[in-house]
Amino acid sequence: MSRQFLAEGGNLPFSGGDYTIVGVVAVVALAALVIGYVLLKEVLAAGQGTAKMQDIAKAVQEGAAAYLKRQRNTLAIFGVVVFLLLFILPADDWKEKIGRSIFFLVGAGFSFAIGYLGMWLATQANLRVAAASREEGGREKAMRVAFRTGGVVGMITVGLGLFGAALVVLVYTGQAPKVLEGFGFGAALIAMFMRVGGGIFTKAADVGADLVGKVEQGIPEDDPRNAATIADNVGDNVGDCAGMAADLFESYAVMLVAALILGSTAFGVHGLLFPLIVPAIGVITAVIGVYITKARAGEGGLVTINRSFYISAVISAVLSAIAAFVYLPSSFSDFGGDFAKNSGNPAVIATVAVIIGIVLAAIILKLTGYYTGTEYKPVKDVGKTSETGPATVILSGISVGFESAVYTALVIGAAVFGAYLLGGGVALFAVALAGTGLLTTVGVIVAMDTFGPVSDNAQGIAEMSGDVDEKAAQILTELDAVGNTTKAITKGIAIATAVLAATALFGSYSDAITKALSGMGTGVVTGLDAAKSFINEVVSPNTLVGVIIGAAVVFLFSGLAVNAVSRAAGAVVFEVRRQFRDIPGIMEGTTRPEYGKVVDIVTRDSLRELTTPGLLAVFAPIAVGFGLGTGALAGYLAGAIACGTLMAIFLANSGGAWDNAKKLVEDGNHGGKGSPGHEATIIGDTVGDPFKDTAGPAINPLIKVMNLVSVLIAPAVVQFSIGPDENAAVRIIISLVAVAVIVAAIVVSKRRGTVISDTPAEIKA
Amino acid sequence: MSRQFLAEGGNLPFSGGDYTIVGVVAVVALAALVIGYVLLKEVLAAGQGTAKMQDIAKAVQEGAAAYLKRQRNTLAIFGVVVFLLLFILPADDWKEKIGRSIFFLVGAGFSFAIGYLGMWLATQANLRVAAASREEGGREKAMRVAFRTGGVVGMITVGLGLFGAALVVLVYTGQAPKVLEGFGFGAALIAMFMRVGGGIFTKAADVGADLVGKVEQGIPEDDPRNAATIADNVGDNVGDCAGMAADLFESYAVMLVAALILGSTAFGVHGLLFPLIVPAIGVITAVIGVYITKARAGEGGLVTINRSFYISAVISAVLSAIAAFVYLPSSFSDFGGDFAKNSGNPAVIATVAVIIGIVLAAIILKLTGYYTGTEYKPVKDVGKTSETGPATVILSGISVGFESAVYTALVIGAAVFGAYLLGGGVALFAVALAGTGLLTTVGVIVAMDTFGPVSDNAQGIAEMSGDVDEKAAQILTELDAVGNTTKAITKGIAIATAVLAATALFGSYSDAITKALSGMGTGVVTGLDAAKSFINEVVSPNTLVGVIIGAAVVFLFSGLAVNAVSRAAGAVVFEVRRQFRDIPGIMEGTTRPEYGKVVDIVTRDSLRELTTPGLLAVFAPIAVGFGLGTGALAGYLAGAIACGTLMAIFLANSGGAWDNAKKLVEDGNHGGKGSPGHEATIIGDTVGDPFKDTAGPAINPLIKVMNLVSVLIAPAVVQFSIGPDENAAVRIIISLVAVAVIVAAIVVSKRRGTVISDTPAEIKA
Repeated sequence: MSRQFLAEGGNLPFSGGDYTIVGVVAVVALAALVIGYVLLKEVLAAGQGTAKMQDIAKAVQEGAAAYLKRQRNTLAIFGVVVFLLLFILPADDWKEKIGRSIFFLVGAGFSFAIGYLGMWLATQANLRVAAASREEGGREKAMRVAFRTGGVVGMITVGLGLFGAALVVLVYTGQAPKVLEGFGFGAALIAMFMRVGGGIFTKAADVGADLVGKVEQGIPEDDPRNAATIADNVGDNVGDCAGMAADLFESYAVMLVAALILGSTAFGVHGLLFPLIVPAIGVITAVIGVYITKARAGEGGLVTINRSFYISAVISAVLSAIAAFVYLPSSFSDFGGDFAKNSGNPAVIATVAVIIGIVLAAIILKLTGYYTGTEYKPVKDVGKTSETGPATVILSGISVGFESAVYTALVIGAAVFGAYLLGGGVALFAVALAGTGLLTTVGVIVAMDTFGPVSDNAQGIAEMSGDVDEKAAQILTELDAVGNTTKAITKGIAIATAVLAATALFGSYSDAITKALSGMGTGVVTGLDAAKSFINEVVSPNTLVGVIIGAAVVFLFSGLAVNAVSRAAGAVVFEVRRQFRDIPGIMEGTTRPEYGKVVDIVTRDSLRELTTPGLLAVFAPIAVGFGLGTGALAGYLAGAIACGTLMAIFLANSGGAWDNAKKLVEDGNHGGKGSPGHEATIIGDTVGDPFKDTAGPAINPLIKVMNLVSVLIAPAVVQFSIGPDENAAVRIIISLVAVAVIVAAIVVSKRRGTVISDTPAEIKA
Repeated sequence: MSRQFLAEGGNLPFSGGDYTIVGVVAVVALAALVIGYVLLKEVLAAGQGTAKMQDIAKAVQEGAAAYLKRQRNTLAIFGVVVFLLLFILPADDWKEKIGRSIFFLVGAGFSFAIGYLGMWLATQANLRVAAASREEGGREKAMRVAFRTGGVVGMITVGLGLFGAALVVLVYTGQAPKVLEGFGFGAALIAMFMRVGGGIFTKAADVGADLVGKVEQGIPEDDPRNAATIADNVGDNVGDCAGMAADLFESYAVMLVAALILGSTAFGVHGLLFPLIVPAIGVITAVIGVYITKARAGEGGLVTINRSFYISAVISAVLSAIAAFVYLPSSFSDFGGDFAKNSGNPAVIATVAVIIGIVLAAIILKLTGYYTGTEYKPVKDVGKTSETGPATVILSGISVGFESAVYTALVIGAAVFGAYLLGGGVALFAVALAGTGLLTTVGVIVAMDTFGPVSDNAQGIAEMSGDVDEKAAQILTELDAVGNTTKAITKGIAIATAVLAATALFGSYSDAITKALSGMGTGVVTGLDAAKSFINEVVSPNTLVGVIIGAAVVFLFSGLAVNAVSRAAGAVVFEVRRQFRDIPGIMEGTTRPEYGKVVDIVTRDSLRELTTPGLLAVFAPIAVGFGLGTGALAGYLAGAIACGTLMAIFLANSGGAWDNAKKLVEDGNHGGKGSPGHEATIIGDTVGDPFKDTAGPAINPLIKVMNLVSVLIAPAVVQFSIGPDENAAVRIIISLVAVAVIVAAIVVSKRRGTVISDTPAEIKA
């Protein structure tokens, strides 16, 4: 695998034709935004149901907006600090430094905006889906509104992601890679915070509401007498919609960034532009996918969605192949210069790599559907174990999670290996291109994912208003079960982009190291010496220690997220209990509980709780890199990627399986509603809640944040690793400061207690 | 880090003095066996209680012996196959090949013998501990018998381990390393099978007995009317005693093997002999540790045990330091030849490294005690969450497991890093020496561990016989709770030896690769080329794929083990139900259930179930190594070690915490026995059972087996990676065959069903 390194200062020659191509891509991106707007109009035009339904929806909208506004203020502080810190890190010149910092803000802003939009739109759509279910042909209409809502978010996600990347390339041309690092980092950092914060919010409200409502008071889910119901519905919107939309935007942006960085080193200008062309094709096929999704009578919702996915995937593959053969030359020798050294046919390599990515998405779709869908063996088995009690439900769900994680991880590994084998001299770029293949499916995937929480919330609004009849309720329940599976699928695809992007960034990390080493003016390390010292760095117990720390951070992050949910849920429990006790008439339904209080409590707690896992993600690679060196940092990334992939899928799929096993029992199997079997699956579902909606999905942006931090600090780490002793001292001080930040954050959050009954005194009182 | 590689053909010069030292070590090892015999006599001389108690104990003894005999026959086939396969793998000459295969059998035989002895002795001791609890001063007497029983197993473990290694060194001198690989591999392979098989046996019987007895029929644990009670008690002996003893012997042997291999490359003959001297010191201090363990009135059992540990640890440290300064020269230049190039003071390096290992053991002891002991915050917190139901018990236990895994892994990582920093030119050997430091504590650790199942079983015998009064029962319950923590501690220490041994073997894997590369007669790869190709191998997406597969295998192995327990437990459930239905008078206590039938069923099932995880462990590294190459195999090992460490500790400690949270509730907290809180912690404990006693502890030998397989196949992988195209074909065929074996094994076990209610038809009928 011989890789050329990008020469200093962006000397890739950009021709007029190249500018035209980027311009066309930018126009396609803007067109996606326009189509999103058209879809939006359609969603908003749908009927809004009864006044009672609108009342409830309004309360949810207000709560969600209030949360996101406060979150924006919190994140703004982080954003400004990182914006300034980025200036400290080495870059080729000031133009690059300024661009990196500015586009960091752009990425962060886009990420937040998409999250906000996703949430706002979902709160509008919930109501309309619930309303549609009451009409004639309700099932088809409800599905259509839910899926079109997803279409809006999908269009905006790919539109803004592609537009941002195209803009960077237009402005910075050859220097684009470093600026793109900033763009991707901004997107990933904000997405991680939104995933963690939203995940804590949604599950704290959910678990808290269930513990007092279902368990203590014996009232049903979404009962308006429960003070936490509105918070629960707000949570679905800020967690599943805002967090998810930001997360998928981030996946899109970072994958694109990785492809552009590696493309330019592999194929020159062609390599920089081709990864823009493929997602532009994805925009076109996503539009087709969204418009062809029509429910047929007597067909499961998942079948409808899958059909759209497969059709648009095939179109993407065909168009990408045409683009490759038209745009790329058939031999590397046509590239001239250093690029001519590579062997193989660039057009063939690119086509097959893109198809690998598309096929990977399809396999993950199938695998996840199999492991979390109510109609297949795994979930049926979990349902069956409900007859022998909660312990066997937990164990069988964990087994399903482990097993599906293994097979999904192996499939992702096989895709990386396939791209690698194919790539020859440009192996890493082939991996990145497989990633862009995955990206062509993101539009449809976002649409599928948004479907889940929108259906879930529509059900909530229907239940709370009491204005929906039996038949309509049945429609919404079915859509909700489909939503559980589509949510799990999205998480699988998101983690696949994480692995592909991380593998590609892993390569750009090595490049950064090598470049920094060879660029050292000291003359200490050159040629064979560099190779030797590199071997010694990489094959040392230190690297293994790095791998262990990387895996440990994934476990720690997951544990922190689960604990945060427990603590915040405890606060909800105490507040709901207080309202039942202090406000007369709630139980009789004559007085309205104070919904806003619970929303406030969860808002405050989840914003407080997101800090510790967030600081861990940013500072752990800094501690390892400066403390243990480049080899250990490479090991750290590898450990985090591998363990993170498995953990993320395990958490998502075991949670999905438990949720749907519960639905199976509620559909009348194994004793039905109210039976001991139902009780057992409710316990499984409660365990699965923070798994699948808090810890699991946050691991995807976590991996990206850690990877980008590593790429950004790599040159500085090398700079301080070589040279005078003062450098070593600085290096160790930086590392110790990073460790201190992490330890302080953990100690502070520990002080708040570790379990559900450790609630702050002011709430207990 | 410059490492010298062992020259071909064993030309390390052995002087008469060297032979004397090895001889003395061998004598110390034999002395340990004699002391073990003396302790054994003391245990057997203790009182045996009532006739009814003896009856029950006899049934358990017979069941356990029958299981181990059948297991021996199964494993013998495996042993012979591997014995022959080892001849195919490259070695320097036939002497080495024959020695490697023969000592493979010796290691396997020792491992099995210790397991058998541990089991046999435990079945004798259970009865005597139960009997002692009835006497005057029962608590002290019972503790003494239990701990002396552990002493016997400890002495035999260290005695046979040290004797085996010394014998290899005496016979093979400079060629010892390759032969030791065989010895260690035999020990690890058999230990893994015994851990897995015993783990499935014990938990299938336990879970099955509980589901029918406690849950369905409402009769207490260990009630003689339950047909699975004897099987449950047999399980404690074949799992916790036989499996654990074999596992610790394997940890001891493999760590020693790693130290000897690396010692000879770092320090020459001195490096080969010093790692024998340190564990010989450990034998002496273990004797002291066992003899000074005396329970003081009013002192918790854990305090007594910890005191013995700390005293013997300090003695070990002091004696090891003296040995280092007396035996090792103060400068590397005294070694002459290649060794003179290393810098630093060998005696200081060795002393500090050994102390790092001893301190590591002490910290793990503290950490594990904190996270799983009933008197500290984590278990109390898990107990507290029982008030909000089973779901919160599960979540808080998982958090405790995650958190303790992270901190334990970081401490182990810090020890590796400390030894690495210290080691300078002999970093890997310093890591291995830290491992021998850990080994000096193994004697006491084994004694502590055996304490657990012996107390547990004594309680079972007391309960079933009904011949033990309230006070005696109280004593046995307390000892059982202490046993839960000591068991978790042992697992922590065992996994620490796994990481240290694996790190060291990781190095010897690189050596094997480098040696094989430089020894290639083709002249294709030399010097700078070798370095370049090595970099390309290591820093490629392939390596990352290897890391992902390594982590995935850990998840798969854990999932398979949990599933195996579910299936086997299902068979128990059906058999016990059948007996209740078909045999009149069982419930009234007038007819004895057919205990033997259940023992037979569990025996058959667990032997059948151990095959799939066993084959996975052996064939996965073969598939990765031959299929993806040396870089990916290195990544694979790193992924498996990192993820395995965290997973093993997570499973062990969350299981331990749940078990002790249940004990807390049973002691009258949070509602006490029979309360909903008790119910919630019973569910937690049932989930934890296969975690802590099946999947978790088997990961330790799993890591070693995979590591040794990799070291053994490394030269063959390199041989087939370079050269003509036919080699590539052979390589791929070998890999595909390995994959096929794994897939076939998984498919076969899947056919048997995946959940507790999927029981073979012949049993259902």
